[in-house]
Amino acid sequence: MIERMLLVPNGLKIPKRGFTQAEFELRTARAQRIMQRNGFDALLLTAPANVRYFTGFDSQFWESPTRPWFIIVPLEGAPIAVIPEIGAPEMALTWLKDIRTWPAPVPEDDGLSLLTSTIRGIPRKFGKIGAEIGREMALRMPVSEFLSFREGLGSAIEDGSPCIWEIRMVKTAAEIDHIHYICQIASDAYEALPSLISAGESERDVVRKLRIDIARRGADATPFMPAISGPGGVAQIVCGPHDRALEDGDILFIDTGSTFDGYFCDFDRNYAVGRVADEVHRVHEALWLATEAGIAAVVPGATTDDVWWAMSRIIEAAGAIVNNVGRRGHGLGLQLTEPPSHRLGDGTRIVENMVLTIEPGMEYAPGKMIVHEENIAVTKEGSRLLTRRAPRELPVIR
Amino acid sequence: MIERMLLVPNGLKIPKRGFTQAEFELRTARAQRIMQRNGFDALLLTAPANVRYFTGFDSQFWESPTRPWFIIVPLEGAPIAVIPEIGAPEMALTWLKDIRTWPAPVPEDDGLSLLTSTIRGIPRKFGKIGAEIGREMALRMPVSEFLSFREGLGSAIEDGSPCIWEIRMVKTAAEIDHIHYICQIASDAYEALPSLISAGESERDVVRKLRIDIARRGADATPFMPAISGPGGVAQIVCGPHDRALEDGDILFIDTGSTFDGYFCDFDRNYAVGRVADEVHRVHEALWLATEAGIAAVVPGATTDDVWWAMSRIIEAAGAIVNNVGRRGHGLGLQLTEPPSHRLGDGTRIVENMVLTIEPGMEYAPGKMIVHEENIAVTKEGSRLLTRRAPRELPVIR
Repeated sequence: MIERMLLVPNGLKIPKRGFTQAEFELRTARAQRIMQRNGFDALLLTAPANVRYFTGFDSQFWESPTRPWFIIVPLEGAPIAVIPEIGAPEMALTWLKDIRTWPAPVPEDDGLSLLTSTIRGIPRKFGKIGAEIGREMALRMPVSEFLSFREGLGSAIEDGSPCIWEIRMVKTAAEIDHIHYICQIASDAYEALPSLISAGESERDVVRKLRIDIARRGADATPFMPAISGPGGVAQIVCGPHDRALEDGDILFIDTGSTFDGYFCDFDRNYAVGRVADEVHRVHEALWLATEAGIAAVVPGATTDDVWWAMSRIIEAAGAIVNNVGRRGHGLGLQLTEPPSHRLGDGTRIVENMVLTIEPGMEYAPGKMIVHEENIAVTKEGSRLLTRRAPRELPVIR
Repeated sequence: MIERMLLVPNGLKIPKRGFTQAEFELRTARAQRIMQRNGFDALLLTAPANVRYFTGFDSQFWESPTRPWFIIVPLEGAPIAVIPEIGAPEMALTWLKDIRTWPAPVPEDDGLSLLTSTIRGIPRKFGKIGAEIGREMALRMPVSEFLSFREGLGSAIEDGSPCIWEIRMVKTAAEIDHIHYICQIASDAYEALPSLISAGESERDVVRKLRIDIARRGADATPFMPAISGPGGVAQIVCGPHDRALEDGDILFIDTGSTFDGYFCDFDRNYAVGRVADEVHRVHEALWLATEAGIAAVVPGATTDDVWWAMSRIIEAAGAIVNNVGRRGHGLGLQLTEPPSHRLGDGTRIVENMVLTIEPGMEYAPGKMIVHEENIAVTKEGSRLLTRRAPRELPVIR
């Protein structure tokens, strides 16, 4: 039965995996213009998504914290890899030509002297290197080793995160195709879900079935899938599944960050289990309309604050008592969440080819939260839906 | 067809999810003895595995880099949580009583002033806090924010990683039960695999089927599954799957780190596609014997170097030209790889209740590598196999 499992979204072509050398050259050239403006001689990258963005290199080995991996993006020319020997054969398949290795793990000097000499060999124009030390980034290496490396380098190391996010925040057409594809796979699976599950099953059962179904439909992985249920709404949206069984009157909330070729979707769906209270339908409708308003507010030139406001008005009028999510959507790409945030004070100017989530939510009574979410790409005129729009009426699980 | 998918390993009871309060108290008391010896007033934790180890708290939200989460383990009493509001309802379900929150994300002060005041409220005996800044750890927060927090704190922050690894390296009986269970699930799936796949299918097809099968058998997730094929051996073991189709004469190498309730297995299996060269059988047998020798070398009191040597002798006699993996096994638990490493110079003394991988590998000809792997728990007398031992003869895919 597993043999015939692979389904493909209706009428959609599977995007070609990986990206052309021209695409990586384009990404790098754009990065270098932004680096020039920020006065960086190079960017030093350690995190999986940043490494993948510039090289196309992926590894299952990110799960192991033992070895650090380094990519250097200089102000001119192609990126340079400074990596454990174990990764060299695969890195050689990317567009990178300059690949330097050491026989990791070597706790006494796990690549740091090689990294230092490599960076010293890069032309100095500004005397400043950008690293992943700021907002929404974490350095994938021991901080103590980073600090002693920084001390010995001789160039200043400053926060490259705003620069890296400026680069990654605007997607290429090929990136958007990838995200669209995984959004369609998850849309199909969400639509099919009521035929796979029934009241009485546990949240954990639901997740297992949906994970399997999304894999059958061609997703590579499902790193994120909270499924939470509760009478008329849920108490939180980021932990679970638990063993709780679905009961009549419940809202079942499921969110997923599944991936295709490294790119995430990130959107949720809500289901009514049997017959839910009338109030739930009213709140659901308000959030459906808030989502419409959020989508409509996304136009090049608007800010993330504008998008927040567009949703807020409707949510507050509907009687929200609190929104502890702290924002109403965010960027999306090689990571489940990326900058910017639709949040008061975020102030990011929206530009063409950003990919964003629109995520209004509200707690309408204590412990009863409902959250909607869609994914969109910003176009010249406004936005294009990457997900298939959630049904206006709650789908029912019997 | 998905409805009847859940299989359970033969005769094995599903371990109870989560752990008792007594277990968390025991972990914390042991940690505090080790902290006392190392002169730490508290441990500051940000990484998912460390947070989960002390609290039982898990979140799908680790995928989002937007918000930092903090757990403080003081020298006396229970851990304290300093976390985003969005996580409070779930943290309240753990054994922790002292949970402090802020309305994250707030880029101007994302929990740092709350963290500072919380740590300042902890009794000072040594004037030193341990943080995850050393080997095989990465701080899950922006380094620039960590540095300014450190500057303002008034207590020294030093490397707590050796202390944290000493705590986590020795498992409780309940932890070993968890790892044993996921090892058995993966063992079943590996044994069933030849009946699910055939020559001509791609590495990617194989991974999809095996991922689905492992999910059906009760694993929660499969964060790690490289599958690599090549004539008589593979060029590397950490990247892939690719679109390469399995051909007669190939070795198909598959490794998996799947999880049950947060705990990983980490072991591989090799398959012959059709008829492989005689030499492959000879190398396979040498590695099978090296694994036996590695397992036999694990006794309390031996060192990781001893385990390395026990395998090396056999591998070298078999004609290894290189081993670019850099070690021959490692610790295993809440992460795919943990200290110690079976590596010359590692020098870790093996003690009862460690969980270890035994992982001899060799490149016997350029680009032709074969690697074996099993998972064991250390007992009073020696070791107990958690995986079902790999067959001595290569299973064949037709």
